Amino acid sequence: MVEQRRAVVLLSGGLDSATALAVAKHEGYEPFALSFRYGQRHTIELRAAERVAPHLGVAKHVIADIDLRMFGGSALTDAGIAVPHHQSADQLGDDIPVTYVPARNTIFLSFALAWAETLGANDIFIGVNALDYSGYPDCRPEYIEAFERMADLATKAGVEGRQQLRIHTPLIELTKAQIIERGLGLGVDYSLTHSCYDPVDGAACGTCDSCLLRQKGFAELGLSDPAVTAARV
Amino acid sequence: MVEQRRAVVLLSGGLDSATALAVAKHEGYEPFALSFRYGQRHTIELRAAERVAPHLGVAKHVIADIDLRMFGGSALTDAGIAVPHHQSADQLGDDIPVTYVPARNTIFLSFALAWAETLGANDIFIGVNALDYSGYPDCRPEYIEAFERMADLATKAGVEGRQQLRIHTPLIELTKAQIIERGLGLGVDYSLTHSCYDPVDGAACGTCDSCLLRQKGFAELGLSDPAVTAARV
Repeated sequence: MVEQRRAVVLLSGGLDSATALAVAKHEGYEPFALSFRYGQRHTIELRAAERVAPHLGVAKHVIADIDLRMFGGSALTDAGIAVPHHQSADQLGDDIPVTYVPARNTIFLSFALAWAETLGANDIFIGVNALDYSGYPDCRPEYIEAFERMADLATKAGVEGRQQLRIHTPLIELTKAQIIERGLGLGVDYSLTHSCYDPVDGAACGTCDSCLLRQKGFAELGLSDPAVTAARV
Repeated sequence: MVEQRRAVVLLSGGLDSATALAVAKHEGYEPFALSFRYGQRHTIELRAAERVAPHLGVAKHVIADIDLRMFGGSALTDAGIAVPHHQSADQLGDDIPVTYVPARNTIFLSFALAWAETLGANDIFIGVNALDYSGYPDCRPEYIEAFERMADLATKAGVEGRQQLRIHTPLIELTKAQIIERGLGLGVDYSLTHSCYDPVDGAACGTCDSCLLRQKGFAELGLSDPAVTAARV
C-alpha cells in the first residue's frame, strides 16, 4: 500500500476553505485540517469547520488558539469597528476593507508551516482567491509565492535540501461561481459551511461582503445559497 | 517635538533579544516589546522579559498566548524530548539541534508584523544571530530577507506602496562576546536576562547549548555570566 502524502489544509469553515479541502482530498492527499480561534467576533464559523472536517474525511482537525484581538485594527476582531452591509454585490469597493485582519494569512500560514514540518508534509492548501478576494493583500499570487520562498529558508527541510514546501491555491484564479461548481462536483455540502462576517441569531446576514459574494456565486449557477436560505426560513 | 518612530521588538527575555531592544532604543525608536507564551517548558524567560522590558524603557510590552505544543517536534516544547547537556561549548555540533522549534521565528515575526501594521510601524527588531546561531535555519540573513519580501506583499502598506517593512537584525553578524560588549555599552543589565533551555530550581543550568554559548561569550571578555553565577551561588 502506497502511503498517502500528508497535507495541511487551512479550514475556516467557509465556502472557499471547504472547497480547498475537497480538492486536496480529491488530489490524493491525506488532509490535516487547521482552524483558528483568533478572537473573531463569533465562533459560528468554527462550528462550521467542525462539521466540514468530518464531512470531508480529514485525518485530524486542530483548532489553534491565538488571540489577535490584542493587536486590533479589524472589524472581524474589534467590536468597535462595524462590519459594512450593502444592498448588492455591485456596491463592493476596490479598497482594502475594514474586515481585513492585519497579517492574518501570514500568521495562519506560519502555523500551517510549523505543523507541516512536524508532520513531514511538504504541502499546504489554502482557499485564497485573487478574483473575488475582497481586496485583501494576502490573497494575491505574488504574496503566496513570496511565502513559499521564505518558508523554504525557514525550515530544516529547506536547509537540508529536501523537498520544498508547496502552497496549493486551487481557487486562486476561479470566480465564486466556479469555486462552487468545483465543490459541488466533489460532493461538498455547502449548507454545512458558514462565511458570514456578521451573523444574526447564528445565521448568515445576507448583506455583508462575504454573504453577497457567496449569493452572487450561487445565483450565477442558477442556485440559491443554502447558508443564506437557511437564515431566511 | 519630533514623534519617535515606533518599532516592534521581539523580546524572549534572553541575552540576545535584550541587546536587540537596547539597540532599538539607542537608534531612537519607541520600542513595543512582544513576547510569547508558546508552551515552552518553563516560563522563567517570560519573567525575565517582564524585568527587561521596563529596565530598557519600552512603550508597551505584550505577551501573546500561542500554544505551539499542539504541533510538538522540539525539546523546548515537548517534555518527551530531552534537552542536551555538554561539558563545554566545543562539543556543540553543526546539526540542527532538538531545541529547534518548527517555524518559530516565522510565527513570531508574523505576529510582530500584525502588531506593526496596527501600530503604523515599519520596523521590527529581532535578536537573531548567524554566527553562534546554534544551527537554526530561521536565524540566517537569507531567511530574514525573504521574510521582508513576503511581508511587503502581505500588508496594506505594501499594497499601497507606502514605506516598506524593515526587519532589523543588529546582532546577526556578531559573536556572542561582541553582542555582550555592545549591550554592556548600552547599559544592559544581563543579570535580568535568562537564556537557559533547562533551568534547575529556576536558575540557569550552565551546561545546555544556550548556557554554554553565553558563558563562552562572557569568558572571552574576561567576565563571568551573571545569570549562571547567580545559579551557582
